[in-house]
Amino acid sequence: MGAIDQLTAELARLPGIGRKTALRLTYFLLKRAPEESRRLARAIDAVADRVRECSRCGNLTESDPCELCDDPRRDRSIICVVEEAADIGAIERAGEFRGLYHVLGGRLSPLEGIGPEELNIEPLLGRLHVGGNGSVRELIIATNPSVEGEATALYLQKLVHPQGVRVTRLARGLPVGGDLEYADGVTIAEALSGRREL
Amino acid sequence: MGAIDQLTAELARLPGIGRKTALRLTYFLLKRAPEESRRLARAIDAVADRVRECSRCGNLTESDPCELCDDPRRDRSIICVVEEAADIGAIERAGEFRGLYHVLGGRLSPLEGIGPEELNIEPLLGRLHVGGNGSVRELIIATNPSVEGEATALYLQKLVHPQGVRVTRLARGLPVGGDLEYADGVTIAEALSGRREL
Repeated sequence: MGAIDQLTAELARLPGIGRKTALRLTYFLLKRAPEESRRLARAIDAVADRVRECSRCGNLTESDPCELCDDPRRDRSIICVVEEAADIGAIERAGEFRGLYHVLGGRLSPLEGIGPEELNIEPLLGRLHVGGNGSVRELIIATNPSVEGEATALYLQKLVHPQGVRVTRLARGLPVGGDLEYADGVTIAEALSGRREL
Repeated sequence: MGAIDQLTAELARLPGIGRKTALRLTYFLLKRAPEESRRLARAIDAVADRVRECSRCGNLTESDPCELCDDPRRDRSIICVVEEAADIGAIERAGEFRGLYHVLGGRLSPLEGIGPEELNIEPLLGRLHVGGNGSVRELIIATNPSVEGEATALYLQKLVHPQGVRVTRLARGLPVGGDLEYADGVTIAEALSGRREL
């Protein structure tokens, strides 16, 4: 297989990129200056070489512990539990949360054979048990608003609540900037049941 | 800038890939085995290092002349003129054409300042002038069915036809598998004027 076909095949293995898009990207990479394409190759090598999971929270990081776990200004008494490391970026961009994170590495899914043992739940319990000053008083469950994410949240709530830790989850409701007309029924039902005083 | 942000920035520079898709691809590359990501980096390096333009036809190739120009079974009396090297792949996949190619490297576009001098037209004329056995008898103009592509085709026709070379262009009409109901008026007009006996 020639270099062009090889690159097209590798690009087509990326999610959401079919054969035609892979071809288009290949020709784009072919047409631009070689040093620009090499910069992309170096960036891929850099993450492959240097990015690892944080041993505390499971975030993807170049340093261990990650810069969030290592930041003395973060509130150590609140932990936000997410399914994937990518979710941390989404919450950080909102700029509202100043606590720590914990990455489960997925969600419970009996159909796919993913039980509690497959997720980073044991290490989470370990973090709750660290007693003394600044111990954890709240767990915000920020799993996805899907059936599996919901089941995972309930499972964690049952596990953690008896230990005297407050367990909350992100609010459901209308997305800001969205259109009531196009909102689905389940979202509207959640928005109704979670309505707040004005 | 960290390795993760760096990779996201590089991916976002690819055509059709915005910031969100770039983030999604970055996390995909982060989550899969490092050696798989490195294979993509190596494939990019390989095209950056080894792929060049064929000195005869302008095709992108690892060998010069390219394997099409070098193939003794191809018919040297017909040259198919395309805008970009990527178009060669599209025509080759159709499996119908057995002649040689010539890549213009774009199309005439006065608005973008692209005149005949910016395109590989001079080398094309050189190829027509090689006399003797197997000299070129037909030029198939396969520029895109756009205003600029059409203008480029007419320009080439005026230039080449007086030299006794037959000049043709690809047929216009309904795309196979398409739906008459959704075809645009210009395409239907072309399909009508180009109608053939059944």
